[in-house]
Amino acid sequence: MSVATAIVGASGYSGAELMRILSQHRCVRLGKVFASTSAGKRVDEVYPIFQKRIDLKFEQYSENALDGIDLVFIALPSGDAMNIVPPLLQKGKRLIDLGGDFRLKDASLYEKYYKRDHVAKKFLAESVYGLTEINRPSIANAKLVANPGCYPTSAILALAPALRHGIIAQKGIMINSLSGVSGAGKNASPELSFVEVNESVRAYKVGDHQHTPEIKSILEQIIGSEVGLTFIPHLIPITRGIYTTISGELLGHPSEEEIHDLFQSYYADAPFIRIMKSSIPEIKNVVDTNYCDIAVRVDPENRRLIIISVLDNLIKGASGQAVQNMNIMYGFPEEEGLSA
Amino acid sequence: MSVATAIVGASGYSGAELMRILSQHRCVRLGKVFASTSAGKRVDEVYPIFQKRIDLKFEQYSENALDGIDLVFIALPSGDAMNIVPPLLQKGKRLIDLGGDFRLKDASLYEKYYKRDHVAKKFLAESVYGLTEINRPSIANAKLVANPGCYPTSAILALAPALRHGIIAQKGIMINSLSGVSGAGKNASPELSFVEVNESVRAYKVGDHQHTPEIKSILEQIIGSEVGLTFIPHLIPITRGIYTTISGELLGHPSEEEIHDLFQSYYADAPFIRIMKSSIPEIKNVVDTNYCDIAVRVDPENRRLIIISVLDNLIKGASGQAVQNMNIMYGFPEEEGLSA
Amino acid sequence: MSVATAIVGASGYSGAELMRILSQHRCVRLGKVFASTSAGKRVDEVYPIFQKRIDLKFEQYSENALDGIDLVFIALPSGDAMNIVPPLLQKGKRLIDLGGDFRLKDASLYEKYYKRDHVAKKFLAESVYGLTEINRPSIANAKLVANPGCYPTSAILALAPALRHGIIAQKGIMINSLSGVSGAGKNASPELSFVEVNESVRAYKVGDHQHTPEIKSILEQIIGSEVGLTFIPHLIPITRGIYTTISGELLGHPSEEEIHDLFQSYYADAPFIRIMKSSIPEIKNVVDTNYCDIAVRVDPENRRLIIISVLDNLIKGASGQAVQNMNIMYGFPEEEGLSA
Amino acid sequence: MSVATAIVGASGYSGAELMRILSQHRCVRLGKVFASTSAGKRVDEVYPIFQKRIDLKFEQYSENALDGIDLVFIALPSGDAMNIVPPLLQKGKRLIDLGGDFRLKDASLYEKYYKRDHVAKKFLAESVYGLTEINRPSIANAKLVANPGCYPTSAILALAPALRHGIIAQKGIMINSLSGVSGAGKNASPELSFVEVNESVRAYKVGDHQHTPEIKSILEQIIGSEVGLTFIPHLIPITRGIYTTISGELLGHPSEEEIHDLFQSYYADAPFIRIMKSSIPEIKNVVDTNYCDIAVRVDPENRRLIIISVLDNLIKGASGQAVQNMNIMYGFPEEEGLSA
Repeated sequence: MSVATAIVGASGYSGAELMRILSQHRCVRLGKVFASTSAGKRVDEVYPIFQKRIDLKFEQYSENALDGIDLVFIALPSGDAMNIVPPLLQKGKRLIDLGGDFRLKDASLYEKYYKRDHVAKKFLAESVYGLTEINRPSIANAKLVANPGCYPTSAILALAPALRHGIIAQKGIMINSLSGVSGAGKNASPELSFVEVNESVRAYKVGDHQHTPEIKSILEQIIGSEVGLTFIPHLIPITRGIYTTISGELLGHPSEEEIHDLFQSYYADAPFIRIMKSSIPEIKNVVDTNYCDIAVRVDPENRRLIIISVLDNLIKGASGQAVQNMNIMYGFPEEEGLSA
Repeated sequence: MSVATAIVGASGYSGAELMRILSQHRCVRLGKVFASTSAGKRVDEVYPIFQKRIDLKFEQYSENALDGIDLVFIALPSGDAMNIVPPLLQKGKRLIDLGGDFRLKDASLYEKYYKRDHVAKKFLAESVYGLTEINRPSIANAKLVANPGCYPTSAILALAPALRHGIIAQKGIMINSLSGVSGAGKNASPELSFVEVNESVRAYKVGDHQHTPEIKSILEQIIGSEVGLTFIPHLIPITRGIYTTISGELLGHPSEEEIHDLFQSYYADAPFIRIMKSSIPEIKNVVDTNYCDIAVRVDPENRRLIIISVLDNLIKGASGQAVQNMNIMYGFPEEEGLSA
Repeated sequence: MSVATAIVGASGYSGAELMRILSQHRCVRLGKVFASTSAGKRVDEVYPIFQKRIDLKFEQYSENALDGIDLVFIALPSGDAMNIVPPLLQKGKRLIDLGGDFRLKDASLYEKYYKRDHVAKKFLAESVYGLTEINRPSIANAKLVANPGCYPTSAILALAPALRHGIIAQKGIMINSLSGVSGAGKNASPELSFVEVNESVRAYKVGDHQHTPEIKSILEQIIGSEVGLTFIPHLIPITRGIYTTISGELLGHPSEEEIHDLFQSYYADAPFIRIMKSSIPEIKNVVDTNYCDIAVRVDPENRRLIIISVLDNLIKGASGQAVQNMNIMYGFPEEEGLSA
Repeated sequence: MSVATAIVGASGYSGAELMRILSQHRCVRLGKVFASTSAGKRVDEVYPIFQKRIDLKFEQYSENALDGIDLVFIALPSGDAMNIVPPLLQKGKRLIDLGGDFRLKDASLYEKYYKRDHVAKKFLAESVYGLTEINRPSIANAKLVANPGCYPTSAILALAPALRHGIIAQKGIMINSLSGVSGAGKNASPELSFVEVNESVRAYKVGDHQHTPEIKSILEQIIGSEVGLTFIPHLIPITRGIYTTISGELLGHPSEEEIHDLFQSYYADAPFIRIMKSSIPEIKNVVDTNYCDIAVRVDPENRRLIIISVLDNLIKGASGQAVQNMNIMYGFPEEEGLSA
């Protein structure tokens, strides 16, 4: 007997990726897809890529349309999920929210960075941060999973072993990330047009991106004390992928090999984390997969550890990780639906 | 004493390219730049590329602001120019319109393909089609130049010698063009976003693009009899450039070399036309220049002539050719301002 | 009991794609991968993308290493396969050759276009052209499948219904194709470097590409009489995908809808052919899939039929189709291993 | 009377860019272009982009061919220039070397990072580092200018004002740079092929790139004391451009505005440096120009200064700066030949 799933906000890039993955997943059924602007249209009319592959129509969202659905993926813009989460939890649905509404435990941080009031504060406590490799046990029993942001996934997976093992100092961490354009979602913003993005690069929201407090607070939960970091995202002309280059002050005198081995064992049970040794992570190695590739390098003269991590922002950074979390929640094999 | 110029619709891609060229032209002064949505802003605020290069503010358009201006470039979307052209001509301004409003002599064709009424029909007769290499004498004396479309420039320059010399049949001509995305103008259409365009190709308006009657009617003027052609534009993931591959039924038995030489002599006096022999035109050879590169190939077994032409849609296909026309109108050296 | 497969020439792009597909195919086992320059190295050392996914080493090719292997995929450059095919057939192996050595029945055509002698002429007669949708019954029993070229797959699938139904004339067919760069294989040619290809387009081998006789002769087999066509390939700056725009002289007066329906029924049983109606094929809809999307448009004024087809050159144009053929040869479900 | 110039190594990307600029420069004549592999061919045969623009043939290099030449640009791979510099200086030629052979005063550093012996050590002392904005007076009289590397130009221009004014600490500086592919030169390396580079990113030579000691030693000359920095270059899929994001520990409590103003006044006389305020540097604003755009941001909570600088690696990062230096050496207007 398979689990019945639905997607709210199915017509964006993360939603489409979820449709693709769920339609091939052997343990679940994709029952409903909601998308307000495309409501009434066939999925393969909006996305011809799904001709002969997905035989569903987008519907206008309503709670009642969710009868018979066990698990709801919410792929709405941040700010929208907090309106529909409370009634759905009351109806007993399990939820995975791909947006930012339930990732920060501290509502005031949310309000500062997302620049709006939080209308479902009392559910912040029960949400589980869905970074699978870090929170597997809590995810298994979660009612509400806050799926991580794409940048935080790449940064936290890279930093967790280094901070947990005290390899680097907790302050002064620099995180430089490069993101493909699909990370900005499917919208008609002029600054995301081909001509404006192609053959160029730009940093944006330097130091005040909403993912900064997410990275910081989750790392603080992981190590139990304060972390100081500066996060600088850049937009680059590729469709998918995040490249994160991190530097931190090296403590002690571990060799590159020792650090590599610590990372390796930290993720020994994680099927989607690949710690690279001789080769350097490249985006092309993870595009269209749920892998996060990580490598470390030491600059001994300047006492610096460099950590590089890459992933596909729409898969491990969004929909793939959401399905990985679903697999944990329902006891399916962790890799089901996610082999490339 | 230099000529005073202005640009109406200066904040689009063609307008920006005009600003770049005119600001370095040694015989003219760029006096005014009009752009409704950016009115009041400095040019280098909207286009940081012009910092330290252009010291002007965008203004709201009005006829009165044109006192002292000799020549006005109109870089508005098609449909807007026909409203401002009549009063400007009456004021004695010389005009170069980069849009489609005055290219077709037959208003009914305009209304069919542009899907709107033409409100300045009586000025169609006096407009001069600004394909420099073909209409140099009329352009010299023109009051109103209708600057050619980007696709028509590439197609007509390629076909004119072949049709004039009776090398190919006048019917059954196939024109396949590939265009960079800047050809669609600066707008926020979702289908022009990076993610939608990158790593893809799509044909559009197959057989009914508004440049079809422009190509057909101008070729008919050139040879004085009817021409039959099918034009298929495609959007490809590059910023600038048009690649046009044409085929026609070969008449007689000329060799590739003979045809090459006929093309060469047809454009003997044209500084911006380069007839290639051993090499095949490539977009990268013309980007950021006013050149149109052309080559011919013969398929003797199938009695076909292949003509390939390439140009930069924003320069030879728009702003560069407009300045080339201005140079002709004022007796400046034809290449002034246009050396790459 | 699963079928044991091997790949000769596994380190090129088609070979890597075969490794990816076969490693996830539920009915076969990938036993051996041969690659001379990478022999001795682990697959995931050469292709880090396969870390944790493929646990094999590249080996130096030898016939003896094929004991226990049922089916051999040959992904060598054209000219190499004809040396190893004869002994392998004698050993009773079934073979799928992804190169051009066994596609043309007429050895003199091969020698003209491939510019080398054919050393295994007597096996030409028994090879089966592996365009699955056209030759399904012969493929089922084939010992030696000549897997089609990427351009011919897109052109023949588009033209077969139109020629079989007499919709277009058999002469004067124009085929314009645009190919992503992976079609040129994995090599270090300077003209395939990023800087040379990016932001440019170029036609090449105009009228004398080796795929011209392949398209022509297969179409002639399909309709049983002579076909005349000109094929013009272009290189465009994308990694994967072929966009083919074909025009032919329309016979009779069928409507666009009637032609669409004829195409639809021609491919009624073909799971990987999608005949599009309102939308135009786009490369992004087929990348990473085994689909070929086709649409027709009529230019009634000029009596022209336009057919557009798109596919992923490494999948439907190479490795995907090879696996589709294997599925037919062994009675597996046609879509096994090929769902995107 | 104009200055006669020659280029040794003219067929690479920097050489081609030099040919383009010099052929339009009003104060010099481009007399000779040397390129061993293309010797005997016309420039416009190798580079069709120069048809009708440059009427020269590539020649095999020899000292004797330089009679009558005043200034020689050397655009050879690092390691080659040091062989030809000594005899040319003895002949009284003025030289601008675009490679790395004369940038490091300390030959042992050269030998460590460039992995070869230095055969012209005694000329290291007299070479002048050609970062125009920093060394204008020495460049004016130089016989041998060592033109800076592309990465060092972007990093040093960004760091010089911050270090000179004591705004940031001299240790622990992190330099993250992203480079377009033309920075790797014109060669047929498989890892620079379109398919390998497109839609990907990779860091390389992390911590041990040969530009690390160049950045460090020049900054140390500028401030007269030791500097500690880690430099991480990345390859991204664009043709031209460098994006450098730097972070350093903030000293004192200057505001972002104060730092901006200090940068502004530091470069008050530099026509090609643009200090941006509200906008963030983007590569597209500097491509095809000699500008370097710089902006600063403060992260007060973490006591970090972020400096971002962008330039076109082939112009301000190579050939444009070389011509800028030539202009200084001969008393031409600094911007001559370099207006975009």
